[in-house]
Amino acid sequence: MTQTPLSPTSRSTVRRGKKRAVADRAVLYSILDSGLVCHLSTIIDGAPVVLPTAYGRDGDTLYVHGSTGALSLRTAGAGVEVCVAVTLVDGIVYSRSVFNHSMNYRSAVVHATATAVTDPDAKCHALKLVTEHAAPGSWDYARVPNTKELAQTSVLAIDLTEAAVKVRAGGPGDDEDDIAANRVWAGVLPLHQVWGEPEPCELLPEGVAAPEHVVAREVR
Amino acid sequence: MTQTPLSPTSRSTVRRGKKRAVADRAVLYSILDSGLVCHLSTIIDGAPVVLPTAYGRDGDTLYVHGSTGALSLRTAGAGVEVCVAVTLVDGIVYSRSVFNHSMNYRSAVVHATATAVTDPDAKCHALKLVTEHAAPGSWDYARVPNTKELAQTSVLAIDLTEAAVKVRAGGPGDDEDDIAANRVWAGVLPLHQVWGEPEPCELLPEGVAAPEHVVAREVR
Repeated sequence: MTQTPLSPTSRSTVRRGKKRAVADRAVLYSILDSGLVCHLSTIIDGAPVVLPTAYGRDGDTLYVHGSTGALSLRTAGAGVEVCVAVTLVDGIVYSRSVFNHSMNYRSAVVHATATAVTDPDAKCHALKLVTEHAAPGSWDYARVPNTKELAQTSVLAIDLTEAAVKVRAGGPGDDEDDIAANRVWAGVLPLHQVWGEPEPCELLPEGVAAPEHVVAREVR
Repeated sequence: MTQTPLSPTSRSTVRRGKKRAVADRAVLYSILDSGLVCHLSTIIDGAPVVLPTAYGRDGDTLYVHGSTGALSLRTAGAGVEVCVAVTLVDGIVYSRSVFNHSMNYRSAVVHATATAVTDPDAKCHALKLVTEHAAPGSWDYARVPNTKELAQTSVLAIDLTEAAVKVRAGGPGDDEDDIAANRVWAGVLPLHQVWGEPEPCELLPEGVAAPEHVVAREVR
């Protein structure tokens, strides 16, 4: 399948740190699929507002959901522009100079006009994607939304066409003088996410085991 | 010391999920001090833009830095409004219904007009805070910035007065019917961040040990 390259517009073209820019759409998908929350920004009363929220992805569409009353989602649903960032921090880069200190990271920034998903079937499909993104295995395990719950939830669709992706990996990028001076240690301290032990709800009867999709959940 | 309570304005007053709202300024500080990157949003050419960036904190001021050429920092430095979010995901809440699935998290959202820090001493102080936030111990260990490097770096100060803080912790909040039905497991899968083993720069001579502030770095 031929994929649209990234950075098709001026504003999604990486200007700073161009060597970190990635034009492969598969990397965009990988970053979005590895994150847990996105940061969705909109303009409300002339001022920028950014909020963290759960999301899911289907091809080149990102879905976010929230209560129908949530201010930012109502505003965005009217068809206004949004910007969505998903950021994964992979480590701290300890360089020989403070100036060259950095982070290893994977960053996706999407520019789009958000549209509300109102068709009940499309909404349910989007909610399944959001649920399965945050809690893989839950849609077929827990009770699915009823009509009332569906009505209380709003879903926004965000097109992924216009996206900027940056990735930094690897060791310090120090100046030659600092390397030659050989004064200090330099390297990377990796950062990992790990799942802890499942903590059962206190209202569960004794002896109910956590299901495989929780116990054996992999870190993406 | 008397602290200004949080949510002093309409737009920083939590509307959705009010039971998660926190008015204690110490919780704001704790969230900011525990995060690694913030998401800074501004308005550029009439559209929202959100970018991840490193930061540091000194009392009620957040500092972010970047290259002087970075578009978003240049725009924000002109005195425009910004919104900054720091989000920590602590776990996934597996509820008995999909609708009540949730995340445990700590969220801080700050609304402010960013101002550029231009005084060299103040800039250096801010850069020390940003460095020590991302890499505690590095300012006194690695080479500090020279005049040229300082000039290449822009710093923004963001006042923390107007902030909204939300925290979700604890187990599922299920409906009584779902609890009574007792069909499935429910609980929380905690998410932790852990530091890996330091990876030395390949240009280091053999036998240079990583310093204590890297080896023994604690997760905040």
